[in-house]
Amino acid sequence: MPKQVDHRDRQEHISRALWHVVDKHGWAKATMREVAREAGVSLGQVQHYFSSRTAMLTFAMDHASAQTSSRISDRLQDLDPAGHPREVLRIVLTEMLPLHSDSRVTSRMSAAYVLEALHDEELRAQARIGMQAGRAMVERLIRQAITDGHIDDDRDPVVETDLLLALTGFTPLLELGVIDADAALKSIDTYLDRLFTSAGDPAKL
Amino acid sequence: MPKQVDHRDRQEHISRALWHVVDKHGWAKATMREVAREAGVSLGQVQHYFSSRTAMLTFAMDHASAQTSSRISDRLQDLDPAGHPREVLRIVLTEMLPLHSDSRVTSRMSAAYVLEALHDEELRAQARIGMQAGRAMVERLIRQAITDGHIDDDRDPVVETDLLLALTGFTPLLELGVIDADAALKSIDTYLDRLFTSAGDPAKL
Repeated sequence: MPKQVDHRDRQEHISRALWHVVDKHGWAKATMREVAREAGVSLGQVQHYFSSRTAMLTFAMDHASAQTSSRISDRLQDLDPAGHPREVLRIVLTEMLPLHSDSRVTSRMSAAYVLEALHDEELRAQARIGMQAGRAMVERLIRQAITDGHIDDDRDPVVETDLLLALTGFTPLLELGVIDADAALKSIDTYLDRLFTSAGDPAKL
Repeated sequence: MPKQVDHRDRQEHISRALWHVVDKHGWAKATMREVAREAGVSLGQVQHYFSSRTAMLTFAMDHASAQTSSRISDRLQDLDPAGHPREVLRIVLTEMLPLHSDSRVTSRMSAAYVLEALHDEELRAQARIGMQAGRAMVERLIRQAITDGHIDDDRDPVVETDLLLALTGFTPLLELGVIDADAALKSIDTYLDRLFTSAGDPAKL
């Protein structure tokens, strides 16, 4: 059905315009009017595709999350058949950090979305569902790595999942230039080495 | 000089009004006009005390940082004479997380400030200086703990400092209710136990 495809394309076009506004000018500037200007469409058209700023934001965030997932999948395909779990977790974590321009845009989008969600119950519920799904995915990977003997079985999978996700706190340090990408990657590698080497994993490089 | 004291008091009053606006309604609402309304003063008065939104924001952020430092100092005073470095680092880290209402306000203020700083060079320079100072303080504590044998001397103080600060990434997980305060504290304690127990520290509780 071409009409639906077109509708979706338009929404994505507007959603990308929103990302650019957030990326270039910050959250305070991301009004429907400014997004329309950036997308080169009328305010009425933005309002046709999105019933509210919240709807526009939710769509743009879902789209950004899908882009992040797609980048992760692409990088995982370059790995060996299944991929060593250390490498899988490294890819998942580093793609959430502003280490290159694509992940910087989605990272800023995500930070702005969380802040906005604190004051909007509908957004907050959406954001929580998205983050819970991401957290569950990481916990499954960690549980599997424990089952497969890549991580010591005295490690608590819930604690390890939360600690790994907490490392997204490199974001403000990177964004403000307090540390550089090499420093963040060195710390992440040291962290993952400790998580995985404790099991004396023979498959580890 | 009473006049200067009064000036400072007024600035702090307006700065607290800004926090409340950010905390209750989010960053997008934090205009000078809205802050004036919240503080119960005229827009002209806000403009008298702050030459720009940037100046207002920088003052409010410095004031929030001072409040965080003061909370940390208060909690450190309850410790033994010098305080075991594990407890000191635990207090520094947990006071940066939104685990109670005071730290929630300063944490939200800080997150909003970082996002705004990405699009304002003056703010970004200010924010970087503040974060570098906090990072340097944590690195000094870690180096001292290594010197004193509380942390194994094969640990890299730069990496350990960056990893500890990265754990402020618990913030969005807490703010969205993906994990609760107990889960965050359990993970932080597990993390600190590993950092400190490796040295087999006899002073550890």
